[in-house]
Amino acid sequence: MTLAIGIDVGGTNIRGGVVDETGKILKRARLSSDSRLGKGHFLNQLKKVVDELGVVAAGPPLLQGIAIGLPGIVDPAQGIVYASPHFEDWKNWNAVNDIEKLLGRRPEIDNDANFAVLGEGWLGAAKEWPHYLMITLGTGIGGGIVIDKKVWHGDRGFAGEFGHIIVETEGPRCFCGGRGCLEMFASATGLKILIEEAPEAIDKRDFLRLCDKEIEGITMEEVYRLAQDGNSFAISLFKRVGFYLGVGIASLVNTLGMERVVIGGGIRAAWDFFIGEAKKEVGKRTYKETAARLQIVPSALGDDAGILGAAARVFTLS
Amino acid sequence: MTLAIGIDVGGTNIRGGVVDETGKILKRARLSSDSRLGKGHFLNQLKKVVDELGVVAAGPPLLQGIAIGLPGIVDPAQGIVYASPHFEDWKNWNAVNDIEKLLGRRPEIDNDANFAVLGEGWLGAAKEWPHYLMITLGTGIGGGIVIDKKVWHGDRGFAGEFGHIIVETEGPRCFCGGRGCLEMFASATGLKILIEEAPEAIDKRDFLRLCDKEIEGITMEEVYRLAQDGNSFAISLFKRVGFYLGVGIASLVNTLGMERVVIGGGIRAAWDFFIGEAKKEVGKRTYKETAARLQIVPSALGDDAGILGAAARVFTLS
Repeated sequence: MTLAIGIDVGGTNIRGGVVDETGKILKRARLSSDSRLGKGHFLNQLKKVVDELGVVAAGPPLLQGIAIGLPGIVDPAQGIVYASPHFEDWKNWNAVNDIEKLLGRRPEIDNDANFAVLGEGWLGAAKEWPHYLMITLGTGIGGGIVIDKKVWHGDRGFAGEFGHIIVETEGPRCFCGGRGCLEMFASATGLKILIEEAPEAIDKRDFLRLCDKEIEGITMEEVYRLAQDGNSFAISLFKRVGFYLGVGIASLVNTLGMERVVIGGGIRAAWDFFIGEAKKEVGKRTYKETAARLQIVPSALGDDAGILGAAARVFTLS
Repeated sequence: MTLAIGIDVGGTNIRGGVVDETGKILKRARLSSDSRLGKGHFLNQLKKVVDELGVVAAGPPLLQGIAIGLPGIVDPAQGIVYASPHFEDWKNWNAVNDIEKLLGRRPEIDNDANFAVLGEGWLGAAKEWPHYLMITLGTGIGGGIVIDKKVWHGDRGFAGEFGHIIVETEGPRCFCGGRGCLEMFASATGLKILIEEAPEAIDKRDFLRLCDKEIEGITMEEVYRLAQDGNSFAISLFKRVGFYLGVGIASLVNTLGMERVVIGGGIRAAWDFFIGEAKKEVGKRTYKETAARLQIVPSALGDDAGILGAAARVFTLS
């Protein structure tokens, strides 16, 4: 038996697992990542998680390696994290060197989204697919591109930033400095902007009364619950999200010529409320040969995708 | 010495060359392609061009192979042309089989734009670059993606359709059935739409008076000449083209993480009138690390790129 340690770091938690070659998670550990407390604190927490998993001392052949998914722009070849949306002091950080010192062995690192993408290819929605892309819709939009079973990172790890495909040149201002990025429409952040920009009408007033809070505080889950209750405004919001998601997928499909797309992230729960509109737009905006063959499927591994994908990197170096 | 025959088929002409391994074109031939006369006529013309090049009978080792760039959606692995903007009767056409029967040897085929992209990588603007993308701005917009010196075709040859990246979800209707595609702004076709949609003003009236024809008949070359003469409306048109080109490049760079872009096609002549605006937009809409390293350069091989890229495929099967 050969094992891997897969770690998935988010802005809130560090989650780790000991994974065997069949993808079974034999042991789990979890601690808060406390992104506001800085890099030193994060490294301490990371060490505790890895120690708790307990097989590190074993070394090869039992423990084949450790891979860690980090939230941010990661260049796996250089071992560098250029920046992170959660950790302010991760700037041009040589993470691989620091973590090697910490753990006494050199980890593989990658962007957390890329490991989730790989996990879906190993054991989830993209099993058997040599080429696919995955779009993850959460607070923001992440994603990844897989070509011949390997993540395509671009020249230095910046590939897969699908949130910053531009769909309206003069649309809402985005955190990235641009305008009208996909993330401003088809994400939890986008949902709030769509609420704000919807014209005043009875159904919007009803919706806001039911939410009973500032728009800023409304979550995707609440909108989903209201949509399930039949609230027409909540339903129309997911249709708008689906519309923009479809536009984004069309741009990606026309660029990459890929026929297989996995959709992940929190919005997946509301699948039935947005996927019809998304598919309709993709169908209008791509060649009909492509549209006819295009498969758009929900991710299958949930929160474990990142841990499993990290383990997949260890086992296959894919 | 080993030779290749490279052929570049357009809607108007079939251009061929005998190319040696250093990229020297030793002999050339050219005939009209007469796209309206159908597939049979086209095949006759193709045979004449190849015969004129005269080395076909030689066979290997002197003639290593023949590669033909065809305008349309081409799946090189299957040898199929799915459709062509110029040849109406090229529908799910097994071009490789028909051309093999015609010439007595099996050709390599690809989309004409992909061969131009490869040519630039062999001997032109993208020499030494392992990964890059090329955007060709002509009547429409074509392009190609090169990863590890190989064209990425997508699942079935549909990759690189950069003209159909969507930049305005409700923009002008596109030939593809969608709306607001990049091609409707940053191409010769887009230039006409930009003229039409520009608000009435004195400088637009002056411009139209100088053109002295219907907007439909105005060419990119005329607009370029007027811009060179200092016509403010013509100059503003190229700035708009640059703006949209920059938006399109930003979407591509954010998707693919590539730091190297070649711009080809007829509009290249007007480089100084649009590239500043394009770079400004890319800078606003990509991560600053990427923007700082991004190289956007004009294509270098002109009309020979397609012939040379076809030969490159023969020599390297890249």
